[in-house]
Amino acid sequence: MSTHLILLAAGEGSRMLSDRPKVLHEIGGAPLFAHALASASGLEGFRVIVVGHGGDAVRKAAEAMEEDIVVVEQTERLGTAHAVTVAAGALADAGGDTLLLYGDTPFIRPGTIEAMQAARGRGADVVFLGFEAADPARYGRMVMQGDILLKIVEFKDASEAERAITLCNSGVVLASTDTLLRLAGSVGNDNAAGEYYLTDIAELARAEGLRVEAVTCDEDETLGINTRADLAAAEAVFQAAKRAEMLEMGVTLVAPDTVHFAHDTHIGRDALVEPFVVFGPGVTVETGATIRAFSHLEGCHVSGGAIVGPYARLRPGAEIANNAHIGNFVEIKNSEVGEGAKVNHLSYIGDAGIGARTNIGAGTITCNYDGVFKHRTEVGEGVFIGSNTMLVAPVTVGDHAMTATGSVVTMNVPAGDLAVARSRQVNKAGFARRFFDKLRAAKAAQQQKG
Amino acid sequence: MSTHLILLAAGEGSRMLSDRPKVLHEIGGAPLFAHALASASGLEGFRVIVVGHGGDAVRKAAEAMEEDIVVVEQTERLGTAHAVTVAAGALADAGGDTLLLYGDTPFIRPGTIEAMQAARGRGADVVFLGFEAADPARYGRMVMQGDILLKIVEFKDASEAERAITLCNSGVVLASTDTLLRLAGSVGNDNAAGEYYLTDIAELARAEGLRVEAVTCDEDETLGINTRADLAAAEAVFQAAKRAEMLEMGVTLVAPDTVHFAHDTHIGRDALVEPFVVFGPGVTVETGATIRAFSHLEGCHVSGGAIVGPYARLRPGAEIANNAHIGNFVEIKNSEVGEGAKVNHLSYIGDAGIGARTNIGAGTITCNYDGVFKHRTEVGEGVFIGSNTMLVAPVTVGDHAMTATGSVVTMNVPAGDLAVARSRQVNKAGFARRFFDKLRAAKAAQQQKG
Amino acid sequence: MSTHLILLAAGEGSRMLSDRPKVLHEIGGAPLFAHALASASGLEGFRVIVVGHGGDAVRKAAEAMEEDIVVVEQTERLGTAHAVTVAAGALADAGGDTLLLYGDTPFIRPGTIEAMQAARGRGADVVFLGFEAADPARYGRMVMQGDILLKIVEFKDASEAERAITLCNSGVVLASTDTLLRLAGSVGNDNAAGEYYLTDIAELARAEGLRVEAVTCDEDETLGINTRADLAAAEAVFQAAKRAEMLEMGVTLVAPDTVHFAHDTHIGRDALVEPFVVFGPGVTVETGATIRAFSHLEGCHVSGGAIVGPYARLRPGAEIANNAHIGNFVEIKNSEVGEGAKVNHLSYIGDAGIGARTNIGAGTITCNYDGVFKHRTEVGEGVFIGSNTMLVAPVTVGDHAMTATGSVVTMNVPAGDLAVARSRQVNKAGFARRFFDKLRAAKAAQQQKG
Repeated sequence: MSTHLILLAAGEGSRMLSDRPKVLHEIGGAPLFAHALASASGLEGFRVIVVGHGGDAVRKAAEAMEEDIVVVEQTERLGTAHAVTVAAGALADAGGDTLLLYGDTPFIRPGTIEAMQAARGRGADVVFLGFEAADPARYGRMVMQGDILLKIVEFKDASEAERAITLCNSGVVLASTDTLLRLAGSVGNDNAAGEYYLTDIAELARAEGLRVEAVTCDEDETLGINTRADLAAAEAVFQAAKRAEMLEMGVTLVAPDTVHFAHDTHIGRDALVEPFVVFGPGVTVETGATIRAFSHLEGCHVSGGAIVGPYARLRPGAEIANNAHIGNFVEIKNSEVGEGAKVNHLSYIGDAGIGARTNIGAGTITCNYDGVFKHRTEVGEGVFIGSNTMLVAPVTVGDHAMTATGSVVTMNVPAGDLAVARSRQVNKAGFARRFFDKLRAAKAAQQQKG
Repeated sequence: MSTHLILLAAGEGSRMLSDRPKVLHEIGGAPLFAHALASASGLEGFRVIVVGHGGDAVRKAAEAMEEDIVVVEQTERLGTAHAVTVAAGALADAGGDTLLLYGDTPFIRPGTIEAMQAARGRGADVVFLGFEAADPARYGRMVMQGDILLKIVEFKDASEAERAITLCNSGVVLASTDTLLRLAGSVGNDNAAGEYYLTDIAELARAEGLRVEAVTCDEDETLGINTRADLAAAEAVFQAAKRAEMLEMGVTLVAPDTVHFAHDTHIGRDALVEPFVVFGPGVTVETGATIRAFSHLEGCHVSGGAIVGPYARLRPGAEIANNAHIGNFVEIKNSEVGEGAKVNHLSYIGDAGIGARTNIGAGTITCNYDGVFKHRTEVGEGVFIGSNTMLVAPVTVGDHAMTATGSVVTMNVPAGDLAVARSRQVNKAGFARRFFDKLRAAKAAQQQKG
Repeated sequence: MSTHLILLAAGEGSRMLSDRPKVLHEIGGAPLFAHALASASGLEGFRVIVVGHGGDAVRKAAEAMEEDIVVVEQTERLGTAHAVTVAAGALADAGGDTLLLYGDTPFIRPGTIEAMQAARGRGADVVFLGFEAADPARYGRMVMQGDILLKIVEFKDASEAERAITLCNSGVVLASTDTLLRLAGSVGNDNAAGEYYLTDIAELARAEGLRVEAVTCDEDETLGINTRADLAAAEAVFQAAKRAEMLEMGVTLVAPDTVHFAHDTHIGRDALVEPFVVFGPGVTVETGATIRAFSHLEGCHVSGGAIVGPYARLRPGAEIANNAHIGNFVEIKNSEVGEGAKVNHLSYIGDAGIGARTNIGAGTITCNYDGVFKHRTEVGEGVFIGSNTMLVAPVTVGDHAMTATGSVVTMNVPAGDLAVARSRQVNKAGFARRFFDKLRAAKAAQQQKG
């Protein structure tokens, strides 16, 4: 039996003070709603995302991420039950179960969803997710009778006795698709805000004689994002978990608190990461590689034995082979750097292939852009590129060739050849002395006048 | 009625182990005494700063900061009351009230000073500032009777009952100028240190029948700086407050603890600041700009939509227009970068104007210094500066012009023209192979000998 | 009387998940066992290190560090007492005392060892080192009777009463060499693991009528490293201590938590270190120097008044003289930079000498490597190196000489001369306009087709 997903991502997030829809703010380099989608990645049903405020941007981001996601728009903001009814069309004949998650609640664990499914399997008709709150003050309370959830009361409506309850409602709920949609459609809006609240389905279900249960998760799973401070706190929670996971997998982090990971960073055992390193999305670092201080990596692959940094920037498409060295103030983009090759200082390598054991001199630049098009540079194996060589793409340098320092290479260089493009040095006797004497005299005159 | 300020900044700060006067050590990029001055910036009276140790340096710093500040020197270190009498000359006919603050106590809030003024307005003659100390051990205790401050007792002179008091003296005091100066002049030095302590004026005032009250502030406002560790702790307090303020204003800080602000940093709503960024003094970042990781900004202005970094250094006078991109290993100083212009890699732009939509190739340098004078570079709109172009200032490149990669541009380039200054490439067949064969043979010979 | 050292460094450290022997993992840039050796650096006897897993690597590291260290190999892992017997051969006729330390316990203070020696001096035959554990759960308990250590019981063998003891065993022990070796040889292996445990010598000694005492140290001294998380935590402890020490010595650390030190970093009073700085091993920074943000220093010396960074990388052999400036995106390796000299932007200076007051233009590179050999560059005093000068080593530039921007300098430049090696600029009228018109037309055509 399939379990479908409705992800509510319509929140305006006005407390974020942002023109960006709340669910597009990021943690670990991925938007909030993508974390919620990932929580439910074990489900095999349809995936429906309800967007509202800034809906086009969310739709675009969601569709870019998953081919099969269905995006529906909630044009009026009439509460969570209303949002579910908006999604109903997409799930009308879907059958199976449906889980409701929230786009601004990124930390629900897959195991928690499995526990909810297990409760369904044991006979519960509707399963709510609750948590024991350390400070339950503002949350809705879950009134239980043994395993049975009697009702969910909002704090402001709660009696003294109900306020003493510490089991709080996360808003996450699982039921058969038919039940969920039918109950959501029955919810009324007879409350101060005139909104349709999904929590009401607990009582509606009980009134129908259905079995309503609660499953409990850790409070930190239900962390929701409402302000920039919440977002920063959630990022910190994410990073702490990721750092611990890296240490547990046998990565050496000299100063874990100074390394920032993305949601999908993979680092092999016995890799070493020095302080002050940022991993953007899409990075894989293999076993035994070294990422030195002040490095910044995105969308790249670093093989074993390679040494990157300090101050290396690897951009998307950088493929660093075994034992290659990428040194300081070096940027690599959309390029393969071969086994044992070295790009050690002050270079920009973009849209290029660098052969094995090739040495790229300091200050080398692949001139890949002519103002309109981008072109490729191919450098062979065992090549010696002299310092400050400009490789004007498209251009090819053959194996074991060489370029003279300071050359602008615009034509291909055959294997084993030396390319030279520079002027002869002339020393002008005494010129420097006369030049500075004159300048200093001018300055002295200027100061006298001034 | 004016309220004047006496700022005591004569402390030697021997526990700082520094040749620099204590009040010139910095928090958030501004000297300690400047923070104290800022606390009192709402006052409209005279501003008198009493300097002692390293007085010339403090005088110079103070006079550079505010035109109208009066600096007086306390040549002997005879206590706080004595310091006030040294300031008396500057306030002799000033009338109004006078507030006493300390140059090494940077965190008194303006609202606290307003509360002291309100107490004066309600009839208090002398108003001391106290705080409830979590651990009052070493502080002077304020002995109260209802609203009335009876006296301030030093810890070492305090009785058992007085030691149980947790309301402690900050040393900050407000009174009419005449009262303050008269009482300070009446203080005796009959104590172990032979110094004149301003705390004694509480009792002197009471003896004259004056009404002496206390106003209370948070303990963290009274944090004083005596050691480097205190200074670092105060900096951390300052940064934490600034980070929280930024988040509250709608700035995204991915990792707030890794961003360092100056006292005057302004960042607009929906700006994004990645980890590991340092803001020196004088930076404004507009709404919607992005400051990427490992960037360092001082005295600059970044407009909306601009992207700065990673590894960008903006120095004083850098003006980055809307949607401009400043990339990695790029330094901008005293230069305007036009709308949509790009300086993406490994460049130094100093004393220059870069037109809108101009693309500056990797490795470009404005050669603004001839060893004695600095000169300007002007680059027009829609220009394509080839990689590794040297722009030898003074020089102008017209709109829609172009420079060939690796050119040293010493003459102006008219609009639409191409400037070329480079040699033709020659490939020397087989040279590289022969060259390395020879070098490797030499090395082998060397190793055999060695 | 000499005190010898046995350092147990044979642990496999399987929980580290590393191919590297545990004691070669580093804290503060030095391997763990080197910290333990440093704890005992006050001892004047022989130094014996017992290696096992990965023994060759540890042996090599140990022998590289200290000339006189004796490395013995424990081929079977049969427990700590067995490890001591393996070391016995090296200490057979040594006499004196012997201290036993552990290669994965880096924080024992020299004063603690002195306290153990003092206990020996006062008549104890065997001195164990214990600590009061905040959470003693998994440690062996030290059963005392007054000053006398009756026995050490493993937790699993301990009675209820013994489990209530909070004085725990660190494993560190001091005795006369003869006593330690004899007792270690008498230990049996009648236990679940079939190993020979050195803790058993407490009871064996008592059975011989020897006086066994315990000395107590702080719990944090006994911190052992078993996992990457332990290693990271130990690094944090090390860094916190080092930062506090720096502040106490009068160094200004703007943000102490963002500065990473090595075990041997020396920084003078009144030096200023900005946020985000990494010190590798072998760095000395003199009084009054400034290390700006994002700098990375290893094996270098920075003199007073010098300013380094932001984004400066000083590699081994960098000697920065008084008042020299090393600016952003600059790498210095194995080079002396003279008094007041400036290397301000985007340069690589390797294997070079730069004279006093010389100005190195932006983008300058010393081309020190010809693909096989490294060569030196010598630049005199008061020289002006134009931007983007390539100094092709071996090469010498005389005092007060000058190089033209963009020159490749392959021949020596006499004092006072100007070296020029560049082509004349030609402006090709209208070329840029035509070029881009053509490119844009091509792009438009491509897009129409595509």
